[in-house]
Amino acid sequence: MKRAFRLQPNNMNDDIRPGEEAVDLPAGSDAGVYFIGRIRTPWLKRADCPKRGTSDGPVCAIVVDERWCQGLEGVEAFPRLQILYWMHQARRDLVRQVPRSHGRASGTFALRSPVRPNPIASSIVDVVDVVGNTIRVRGLDCLDGTPLIDIKPYRPA
Amino acid sequence: MKRAFRLQPNNMNDDIRPGEEAVDLPAGSDAGVYFIGRIRTPWLKRADCPKRGTSDGPVCAIVVDERWCQGLEGVEAFPRLQILYWMHQARRDLVRQVPRSHGRASGTFALRSPVRPNPIASSIVDVVDVVGNTIRVRGLDCLDGTPLIDIKPYRPA
Repeated sequence: MKRAFRLQPNNMNDDIRPGEEAVDLPAGSDAGVYFIGRIRTPWLKRADCPKRGTSDGPVCAIVVDERWCQGLEGVEAFPRLQILYWMHQARRDLVRQVPRSHGRASGTFALRSPVRPNPIASSIVDVVDVVGNTIRVRGLDCLDGTPLIDIKPYRPA
Repeated sequence: MKRAFRLQPNNMNDDIRPGEEAVDLPAGSDAGVYFIGRIRTPWLKRADCPKRGTSDGPVCAIVVDERWCQGLEGVEAFPRLQILYWMHQARRDLVRQVPRSHGRASGTFALRSPVRPNPIASSIVDVVDVVGNTIRVRGLDCLDGTPLIDIKPYRPA
């Protein structure tokens, strides 16, 4: 199961829409990310995921790998957390995109689309409970099985 | 200059304080990050960095590599941005830490310390201006030369 997350994204050959622009990706990466757990959600296909998680959305589970479990000590004190996760199915080479939702072309950094050089999502979630290595939360928007990369206390801007 | 960011963190042998706990890191990483630019700040040593950037802090420059520049189209419309960056000098193996500031032991995921399995920082910044491939902002807290990994429009929780 874990191995599946190491596969190449399955949509690098998705069509580019008119107005979108791709660049050549660098020959190699500059740093390595560890997947520290995974996220269980009700959404099994990209098309089913909400555009943005909400605090009245379904309860999802953040399951932390055994190796990192001790890092959860004290997390239960925070009503909200910031979660970083790796959008493993998103292509990484588009610098200009035309979101389906509004059809206007925009630079990748002016969008929160999963398609970006480093497909890292950041969401603020409401904590339901913390039991063992699992945090149940509301406010996520990602595919079932999405790799977890960080958990931080939420700090309002 | 760019090459320097690929060096190993220089403090993996920092002393562990009493109450802190390290784990063995995984044998390999699960995904690769591209450094897409770098951040210029006034802080040349970790000890000089503020604990948290503030909107009355100094102006810092986010310089995006040529390859990704087109992704900035439309960014100037946002007064605040979320910036993700790679804290390249932080060790990654501590699951329990004792912050100098308050001296209480805590799980890594209950802290926003740079020391974490994936040393990715997330800050909300106020945009001063966008000129060419450079965004000048206030609200950062990192070392001069810190690798940039993402820029997103800020979306209040």
